[in-house]
Amino acid sequence: MTTLRALAPSLLLASTLLAGPALAQRAAPLVDPAVAALRDKALNDDIAYDIVEGLTTEVGPRPDGSPKEERARQWAVAKLKSLGFKNVRIEPYELKNVWIRGVETAEVVAPFEQPLRLTALGNSGATPAEGLTLPVVFFPSLADLRAAPDGSLTGKIAFVSNAMQANQDGSSYGPEGQARRAGPSIAAQKGASAIVIRSIGSDHGRGPHAGVTNFAPGVAPIPAAALSVADAANLERMVKRGKPVTLHLTLTPTFVPSRMSGNVVAEVPGTDPAAGTILIGGHLDSWDLGTGAIDDASGIAITTAAAKRMMDAGRHRRTIRVVWFGDEETGGFGGLAYAKAHAGETHAMAAESDFGADRVWRFETNLPATAKPVGDRLIAALAPLGIVHGAGVAGDGTDVGPTLATGIAAVDLNQDGTRYFDYHHTPEDTLERIDTQQLRQNVAAWTAVLAVVADAPEAIGPVTPKK
Amino acid sequence: MTTLRALAPSLLLASTLLAGPALAQRAAPLVDPAVAALRDKALNDDIAYDIVEGLTTEVGPRPDGSPKEERARQWAVAKLKSLGFKNVRIEPYELKNVWIRGVETAEVVAPFEQPLRLTALGNSGATPAEGLTLPVVFFPSLADLRAAPDGSLTGKIAFVSNAMQANQDGSSYGPEGQARRAGPSIAAQKGASAIVIRSIGSDHGRGPHAGVTNFAPGVAPIPAAALSVADAANLERMVKRGKPVTLHLTLTPTFVPSRMSGNVVAEVPGTDPAAGTILIGGHLDSWDLGTGAIDDASGIAITTAAAKRMMDAGRHRRTIRVVWFGDEETGGFGGLAYAKAHAGETHAMAAESDFGADRVWRFETNLPATAKPVGDRLIAALAPLGIVHGAGVAGDGTDVGPTLATGIAAVDLNQDGTRYFDYHHTPEDTLERIDTQQLRQNVAAWTAVLAVVADAPEAIGPVTPKK
Repeated sequence: MTTLRALAPSLLLASTLLAGPALAQRAAPLVDPAVAALRDKALNDDIAYDIVEGLTTEVGPRPDGSPKEERARQWAVAKLKSLGFKNVRIEPYELKNVWIRGVETAEVVAPFEQPLRLTALGNSGATPAEGLTLPVVFFPSLADLRAAPDGSLTGKIAFVSNAMQANQDGSSYGPEGQARRAGPSIAAQKGASAIVIRSIGSDHGRGPHAGVTNFAPGVAPIPAAALSVADAANLERMVKRGKPVTLHLTLTPTFVPSRMSGNVVAEVPGTDPAAGTILIGGHLDSWDLGTGAIDDASGIAITTAAAKRMMDAGRHRRTIRVVWFGDEETGGFGGLAYAKAHAGETHAMAAESDFGADRVWRFETNLPATAKPVGDRLIAALAPLGIVHGAGVAGDGTDVGPTLATGIAAVDLNQDGTRYFDYHHTPEDTLERIDTQQLRQNVAAWTAVLAVVADAPEAIGPVTPKK
Repeated sequence: MTTLRALAPSLLLASTLLAGPALAQRAAPLVDPAVAALRDKALNDDIAYDIVEGLTTEVGPRPDGSPKEERARQWAVAKLKSLGFKNVRIEPYELKNVWIRGVETAEVVAPFEQPLRLTALGNSGATPAEGLTLPVVFFPSLADLRAAPDGSLTGKIAFVSNAMQANQDGSSYGPEGQARRAGPSIAAQKGASAIVIRSIGSDHGRGPHAGVTNFAPGVAPIPAAALSVADAANLERMVKRGKPVTLHLTLTPTFVPSRMSGNVVAEVPGTDPAAGTILIGGHLDSWDLGTGAIDDASGIAITTAAAKRMMDAGRHRRTIRVVWFGDEETGGFGGLAYAKAHAGETHAMAAESDFGADRVWRFETNLPATAKPVGDRLIAALAPLGIVHGAGVAGDGTDVGPTLATGIAAVDLNQDGTRYFDYHHTPEDTLERIDTQQLRQNVAAWTAVLAVVADAPEAIGPVTPKK
């Protein structure tokens, strides 16, 4: 709602100005009327919502390497064919060391008996089936854990409790998320029998935030889990009362050595194969606690809806390739497989949508000097959607990252992350989190980008990748 | 924050008016300055928060008849003694047919495999340990279930999916909650093997809302559970796609025939026993999914803090008795036991706090004509807190209800219920739901009521109970 209310007057203003005599001396409007029309029509898009609704209802959770991810690929192929895309196919690859969630429970045993809600981190080791009962050692932050003497955690459960604040640009996830990514390996190296962390999330609820951790080479995985933010706060209050705290922790995940997985690929063929393919998409896999609506059904839905709108508008110069990547969550394996499989091809640009479904507020590019006019046209085409041009260099994204690293031009459409980490990787990542008007604004933004880039006469050649 | 911001100018205004010449002709200000001072000092209260924080951290969930409720009573006795209350004691009673939660899982088996989040309703029957796998029959509302022909649900799982809207006065809980209270018995009478309902809640999340159901005499309990609102919406979308939906449901609750339970009682003795006791309180038990912060640690905390403030202010005419009732959730057994144990005593007034911790926005009374001036003084004393005088007759409350029914005067302080049913009986009922400023406004309101009533020279005699 907010988005469209803010938008309507600016659209009105823009059209008034463009029609007015004050601008008549300009050679041509910066925004091609056909581009503007495609963009504005996308503000009524229903395709993206239909994809999110369908995938969350008919498939639901689709964890990496699971039979549910396989079912999601079948669903994807059927959906993309029904939308009229060409060359719809699964590009298979092997996924190794597939982590499978088991039982996960925890209770404070002393000084105050209470159950705690948590979820095992991806790649966590397992406790014995009957669990571990051990004292807790509290660390306010990862830095405090790092400062603990080697061997000081033997026979202990480390508890790292740094809290995450919400930022519009998601910038707190990098530093705060290190507790999840690196904390378990550090705790293991210091001898800990297990680790629990405060969920990497900006909410104050009971739904724990899943996510992957990685143990350094040679470090044997220990049981590792994220407490919900509310449960971590409760445990912290218990610790601060000064008596020793004992936790009973049961985590029984397992690994299987190998499973086949895949990326789902669909295309809108262009008229000029030499102009390079535009690669867009999101990831089809999800964590298993929710139904993966904002992470990342919305990303595949937004990019697919935009591509479908381009397809329906007629032939364009460049081929648009939409990829629903596999296995992003546990290591970006779909993106790596794509880059390997398509290493010899010419890409004009690559971009992904993987930060929820709230409005795009900023965009950044990494274009060669020869394509500066393309960037200028993007600024003009996106401004009426309330999107500002950021000063940074584009090139983010786990899935398109390996492709971008080969010197491909990038466009990042930054979504508003203010509430993203309230739900990210939790049971609450469901259809209810989708704001349909903001979803439509995303489709409009992506449609505008595709409309500008697909027919750009300029070469959008190699660039120096963002490091 | 909102409350105090709204409050500050009105307090300022009130004191200006009272000091001004325009009101000088009145015989006396309606609000005794000592009452006003006690009330306003309570806006800085920390006692109530300390109780909620302590009970949720050191005890946590305390379901009816459980060892955790027993531990809560011990905690309560220690806390009330440490606050300086007199005659602190447990008044024991027997609780029969104690329901104990078991395993609770559900998965859609066809046409779309998905796990669903739910919780068994109190008094639910059990499935076999391996669960039931049966077709679902969808009913948009309880009225639709009522209209189903007898026997039409044999071998089926009924699914009742009425949605609840949030109202400030909580008025939707009565009618919408019937799906939980009566739905399972109706479904059983029509031959259903089990029933799932959409949680009685105004949220859109994954936390199911627990709560008690009751089977009519002679109706054998069937397995009965509440899906989270988001899971019910998902199941409803599946149903509406038109293919038969099959659910696998496992609920393994059990009953034990009898357990001892109790009310915790504490007093601030008055100077005039013949003037009758003021009975206030809330309930100590809670559902087990959260830590029972807003249901009802806050209610016992608010009333206890107000009584403590009266105690610290010096002797008053009437005895104030604070009761932390047991076993409200599954049938108001603590309130019934209290009324039975204290049947011969004189009560001047009875009131409870059991609707969360958000601000009091309205109050109503049921006072005899002889005590009309008391009511007028309450109106004046509560107005500066932003509390309006409602037109209804007081007398609500499961715990004080059986006492009120004997003809005791009532005062209801109505809390704002706008967000109460987002959290009610869910895992999210934790300390995080407490807004400290609104909690303090509650304490101030209760302190004002106690200050007016405790020293009222009028007789606050028998009344016709609200029916």
